[in-house]
Amino acid sequence: MEKNRKIVLASRPVAWVEESNFRLEESDIPQPGVNQVLVRNHWLSLDPYMRGRMSDAKSYAAPVAIGDAMIGGTAGEVVKSNHPDFVPGDKVVGALGWQLFGVADGGALQKVDVSLIHLSAWLGPVGMPGVTAWVGLFDICAPKPGDTVVVTAASGAVGSVVGQLAKIHGARAIGIAGGADKCRYVTEELGFDACIDYKAGNLRGDLKAVAPAGIDCLFENVGGEIFDTLLTQMKPFSRIALCGLISQYNSAPWPMQNISAVLINRIKLQGFIVSDDLSRWPQALKELAGHVATGRIKFRESVADGLAAAPAALISLFKGGNFGKQLVKLV
Amino acid sequence: MEKNRKIVLASRPVAWVEESNFRLEESDIPQPGVNQVLVRNHWLSLDPYMRGRMSDAKSYAAPVAIGDAMIGGTAGEVVKSNHPDFVPGDKVVGALGWQLFGVADGGALQKVDVSLIHLSAWLGPVGMPGVTAWVGLFDICAPKPGDTVVVTAASGAVGSVVGQLAKIHGARAIGIAGGADKCRYVTEELGFDACIDYKAGNLRGDLKAVAPAGIDCLFENVGGEIFDTLLTQMKPFSRIALCGLISQYNSAPWPMQNISAVLINRIKLQGFIVSDDLSRWPQALKELAGHVATGRIKFRESVADGLAAAPAALISLFKGGNFGKQLVKLV
Repeated sequence: MEKNRKIVLASRPVAWVEESNFRLEESDIPQPGVNQVLVRNHWLSLDPYMRGRMSDAKSYAAPVAIGDAMIGGTAGEVVKSNHPDFVPGDKVVGALGWQLFGVADGGALQKVDVSLIHLSAWLGPVGMPGVTAWVGLFDICAPKPGDTVVVTAASGAVGSVVGQLAKIHGARAIGIAGGADKCRYVTEELGFDACIDYKAGNLRGDLKAVAPAGIDCLFENVGGEIFDTLLTQMKPFSRIALCGLISQYNSAPWPMQNISAVLINRIKLQGFIVSDDLSRWPQALKELAGHVATGRIKFRESVADGLAAAPAALISLFKGGNFGKQLVKLV
Repeated sequence: MEKNRKIVLASRPVAWVEESNFRLEESDIPQPGVNQVLVRNHWLSLDPYMRGRMSDAKSYAAPVAIGDAMIGGTAGEVVKSNHPDFVPGDKVVGALGWQLFGVADGGALQKVDVSLIHLSAWLGPVGMPGVTAWVGLFDICAPKPGDTVVVTAASGAVGSVVGQLAKIHGARAIGIAGGADKCRYVTEELGFDACIDYKAGNLRGDLKAVAPAGIDCLFENVGGEIFDTLLTQMKPFSRIALCGLISQYNSAPWPMQNISAVLINRIKLQGFIVSDDLSRWPQALKELAGHVATGRIKFRESVADGLAAAPAALISLFKGGNFGKQLVKLV
């Protein structure tokens, strides 16, 4: 008889996440109760926010308990359904975690159409990362056509959508990424106006060369020294959507020197979490689905093969080892 | 024949402002041209923003040129008028700088009513500092009744108005000030709910004791270590009006450790300069004048005697030596 396999949190990381923080376990396949659905997960999404859930430091969401399956977004196929909206074979997106099978209430699953958009994309540009890009760009940064939008981690799941949405909106898009390959992809494939490889070591000068008048909108995913440098290049009355600080999730915070720029240039700096306002999701997903289905928004995936590969893939994500949306293929 | 006296910028400060950065000069009393007004200044306002104008570092306003009179807000009496709206004896507020007499276009002067509000108050709670408090509190912090509002430099010209406006609005007001005397004034005279003497050395613990649930609105005038500590006490979805960073105008910036709080708690942090949006001034001044005339907003002044005392008084301001609004009495 087939069994479920899942990866649980074995211990909390001290600094960098390590493989020993996880443990692979086998269990029976769960059975759906009233109004519940059993799903076979095909894809697991790996995302930076997972570092926060592995820690028990105070945060906006409760941590994963030691011994529990790691949380995570998943896309898969309905196997059994006790809910009137789902039948076996339906493709669904949910948050069933790091496991091959999962049970959820029907209301916690989203049925998706894979005729024009591949199932895995519902975890990327047409999923949480895409909506994150949409909300931060339009609700916080609010660029006008012609504005200069800068986004860090520009080849990643969120950053790649930010720049492409900015271009569709008529703004200039400048990416910051780690390495020449990622930068080439950002400009040549995604159509950004420019991309700066921060690893080349001249971020401020390179940015001044392509944006001499400064930044109107910064979509910040990285934090640390890169963010501190970008603060010096903000225009008066500019906006910063603070979406992530991946550079310091696994280490001590970078001591920020340039916060005075927020005062001098009357910057609006706003942190946000995409799940705070679910009312924005339907409009965002509708627009993103249209862009992805017609090829106006392109995306790239890094795929780890099999559940057992998930821990190493997450660790690599924190070191910039992914190139595009990081996924784990489960079947 | 009577002469004008003025204080000019002699040199730019390197770190702390020094008396040698200023020079007292005598000159002829200027004569008003077409549509201009000659004013005898009675009061000069000293304010933290003046440090920025003494420097030629890039900022939101042009620096004072070496050899030019220091800029500054003034209140005085019309001596001669070539403008139809003014006659000798009118009391006016303007920005005539560090001098006994000044000439301005009539359009750059505001005639004020001193029947219920003393002339000097038009440079304080019913002037730029009061409007700064009003704009930062209502337009950026936007507290709801019952919210906890924290303001730094709470006994100062801006901070004292912030807390009193917060109370009038139905919020809780907590001040941060330097020294037991200032704190006693803030609670006993101004009616704040609490005040913490940061010099006692236990800011975080003392704040937790009076605001265990955290801060909804922070009106930040000080910056540096105090701001960095307060960041750790912000509630989810809280707001910060960044008005000043007086702790680091004369020294290297404090390395901020806690910017991640902006993300974790989805804080809106916004820098502002009160002169950016003049459209807000009439409503603010009308409300502030009503509160001051009826005694709902109280204020305190530190008065330096005579123009020659202005440099030492400004230097003292940067060290927290003032208690309430810092003025120079010119006549």
